Amino acid sequence: SEWPAVDIPLDHHVFKVPKGYNAPQQVHITQGDYDGKAVIISWVTPDEPGSSQVHYGAVQGKYEFVAQGTYHNYTFYKYKSGFIHHCLVSDLEHDTKYYYKIESGESSREFWFVTPPHVHPDASYKFGIIGDMGQTFNSLSTLEHYMESGAQAVLFLGDLSYADRYQYNDVGVRWDSWGRFVERSTAYQPWLWSAGNHEVDYMPYMGEVTPFRNYLQRYTTPYLASKSSSPLWYAVRRASAHIIVLSSYSPFVKYTPQWHWLSEELTRVDREKTPWLIVLMHVPIYNSNEAHFMEGESMRAAFEEWFVQHKVDVIFAGHVHAYERSYRISNVRYNVSSGDRYPVPDKSAPVYITVGDGGNQEGLAGRFTEPQPDYSAFREASYGHSTLDIKNRTHAIYHWNRNDDGKKVATDEFVLHNQYWGKNIRRRKLKKHYIRSVVGGWIAT
Amino acid sequence: SEWPAVDIPLDHHVFKVPKGYNAPQQVHITQGDYDGKAVIISWVTPDEPGSSQVHYGAVQGKYEFVAQGTYHNYTFYKYKSGFIHHCLVSDLEHDTKYYYKIESGESSREFWFVTPPHVHPDASYKFGIIGDMGQTFNSLSTLEHYMESGAQAVLFLGDLSYADRYQYNDVGVRWDSWGRFVERSTAYQPWLWSAGNHEVDYMPYMGEVTPFRNYLQRYTTPYLASKSSSPLWYAVRRASAHIIVLSSYSPFVKYTPQWHWLSEELTRVDREKTPWLIVLMHVPIYNSNEAHFMEGESMRAAFEEWFVQHKVDVIFAGHVHAYERSYRISNVRYNVSSGDRYPVPDKSAPVYITVGDGGNQEGLAGRFTEPQPDYSAFREASYGHSTLDIKNRTHAIYHWNRNDDGKKVATDEFVLHNQYWGKNIRRRKLKKHYIRSVVGGWIAT
Repeated sequence: SEWPAVDIPLDHHVFKVPKGYNAPQQVHITQGDYDGKAVIISWVTPDEPGSSQVHYGAVQGKYEFVAQGTYHNYTFYKYKSGFIHHCLVSDLEHDTKYYYKIESGESSREFWFVTPPHVHPDASYKFGIIGDMGQTFNSLSTLEHYMESGAQAVLFLGDLSYADRYQYNDVGVRWDSWGRFVERSTAYQPWLWSAGNHEVDYMPYMGEVTPFRNYLQRYTTPYLASKSSSPLWYAVRRASAHIIVLSSYSPFVKYTPQWHWLSEELTRVDREKTPWLIVLMHVPIYNSNEAHFMEGESMRAAFEEWFVQHKVDVIFAGHVHAYERSYRISNVRYNVSSGDRYPVPDKSAPVYITVGDGGNQEGLAGRFTEPQPDYSAFREASYGHSTLDIKNRTHAIYHWNRNDDGKKVATDEFVLHNQYWGKNIRRRKLKKHYIRSVVGGWIAT
Repeated sequence: SEWPAVDIPLDHHVFKVPKGYNAPQQVHITQGDYDGKAVIISWVTPDEPGSSQVHYGAVQGKYEFVAQGTYHNYTFYKYKSGFIHHCLVSDLEHDTKYYYKIESGESSREFWFVTPPHVHPDASYKFGIIGDMGQTFNSLSTLEHYMESGAQAVLFLGDLSYADRYQYNDVGVRWDSWGRFVERSTAYQPWLWSAGNHEVDYMPYMGEVTPFRNYLQRYTTPYLASKSSSPLWYAVRRASAHIIVLSSYSPFVKYTPQWHWLSEELTRVDREKTPWLIVLMHVPIYNSNEAHFMEGESMRAAFEEWFVQHKVDVIFAGHVHAYERSYRISNVRYNVSSGDRYPVPDKSAPVYITVGDGGNQEGLAGRFTEPQPDYSAFREASYGHSTLDIKNRTHAIYHWNRNDDGKKVATDEFVLHNQYWGKNIRRRKLKKHYIRSVVGGWIAT
């Protein structure tokens, strides 16, 4: 059940344009604030601006509320984009299903989404993790598998459309097709975006040299809510998780805005409220595949110490078109003048997981360095996605699902113990029966 | 002869505003093209735009030519800049002294500069190297010492004014004072600029979060001439040197524009024409001072291999407020899974020289890590500047001058053998007597 690594032809039904003149397409939502009481709804109208409003309400067909968005368009080389709308819908209730309608002349379309629970240490929540997707039949298989997983929001690890594999006006065309391709999921649940190298779109031969132009026009992030100065790095809180999104291809060394922002954001993490500290980046810091080997060293040198110091639970990255999970290891004592060169087991270190196997046209990265280094716990070059099913403050079940199996088969699976609450001292603080009641409830579901 | 690390008061004569209404001030020039036949002349008029023209000619007082520049102004927080003029003067003759006049109502001012020789492997040329200057009395001592050195152009290693040590409107004011402070040299010879952390000016508390705003408005670079997409990284050829300027605080990892540009620029280096390959960056890759220790690791991981592969002659960096010179070493076999951790002697590697002791108000970085690592050849925490006196394709004399000595005393000095021409195979290609004639001529001068 593996397809050739080529993009699905543009006339395939997965890219079909919704019926009706100027009908809204490429509908996608993302979290719109810090704590999950807002969403940003985005879409494209091909022919004319039309309305930037979103009508919404908690009862299907009854749209009591309306939010006003904005639109803009842009050119990339000679490609002219449609009219791209972004609309912030805020002050929503937690744990509520909302229905929304986007009108464009006679072609209105309706969707829904569910807001996350209150930020709470025991709020259970299931995240999907996808990276390096593209738009091949393997990408489609990943998307379909993911939509069976029951996950409630996607942590997307960068490299969306692979439109940069095309030239001139086809670049914009393949950004549009990707938007329609993932709408089946992105219109109904938030995908939290991070940028990969295939979003840089640095094409001097076309006179396009400003990084991220297509990506930033189309995909928004709630960066101001976390006091970031750029949509490329930001943080949100969702249920019991604090999610920090970093940008591998923006400046990140000491004294840069991203560096300043991360050092402050880490102090804002309150593990009493959000026990699960998750970091996303495109380029993996630990990766034993030959592809992109050691490309994460630059960011490792800048940030690894902070990740260990703040006991990050897990770091997800993409970029390598395979799957790999590390043990909890660190190499923070490496010192160019003296000191250890190997990553060593470190209880305070995150687990590093590479999920870059979303299915894009570059195919799988089949060659791992041999022998498998000590820090690598599981690795396999197969297409798939992961899920992180957070049960409470102490336990989360992590799965990696391989597309090949044709059905939801957990190929790599383990229980993630929370780095903050998993500690014995805190556990003693938890009244004994409380654990039994929580774990009991979890086993029963 | 060391002064306290505090800025010179604004009313000191070193910052005096030139006489006359709207008189041009902060005059500074830089190379304006790839090969040294053009300069960009920049200045500020405080009260009104006035003319953006430069009148120039090869005979003093006789300005046969005129070049038309542009001007703009900007605000930073509530500070309003003067009118900043940039004027490209091109198609100049090599090896020629030009006189130029900037008119502003009745307050015109006159200066001169000398163009470099043709790009030629044996073209001798003396560069000055200064970093982390600021505007204290130690900075003044460095500037005065430098102006006695006979060097013909400055390779500036970043951290210019330290205006970011001030707040609100004083930031802009101290950028202006620095411009007047260095005019005594910058109006007469090109300073080739690179950006340091003190140019980032990331000040969220003032609502200023776009990096490099003050720096990029005031200081230009000929980046388009070397096919770069940003003024923050570029290259020029000057006499027998190919100078590559990198930006430590811009994205530089694989797939970023700076990474793409450097990989192409290195292929454009022609050591038959420009034997001396010099790289400038702000953050040192090898530095055994406690200050900023290992902050260069991120860029080392990205570029060290290329520097060795392309046999860069020397890499100058600033950032650490001291002086240090390394042996030719590399650590390119370091591998996070296995491999050597120490930098080892490597004939193909550059010499790494840190010249961050220009004198700024943060004072000297007096604490080196002990013991001195094997890769460190000379290190001292004293204010000063360096010069690189290129004699021909095979030899250059390098000096580090310590301010303390009150006069031009070479404290660290060595002969730099060209990495490309110094090799035996090429040396055998050089007719034997040719070396004797060149070296003989050099000893005689």
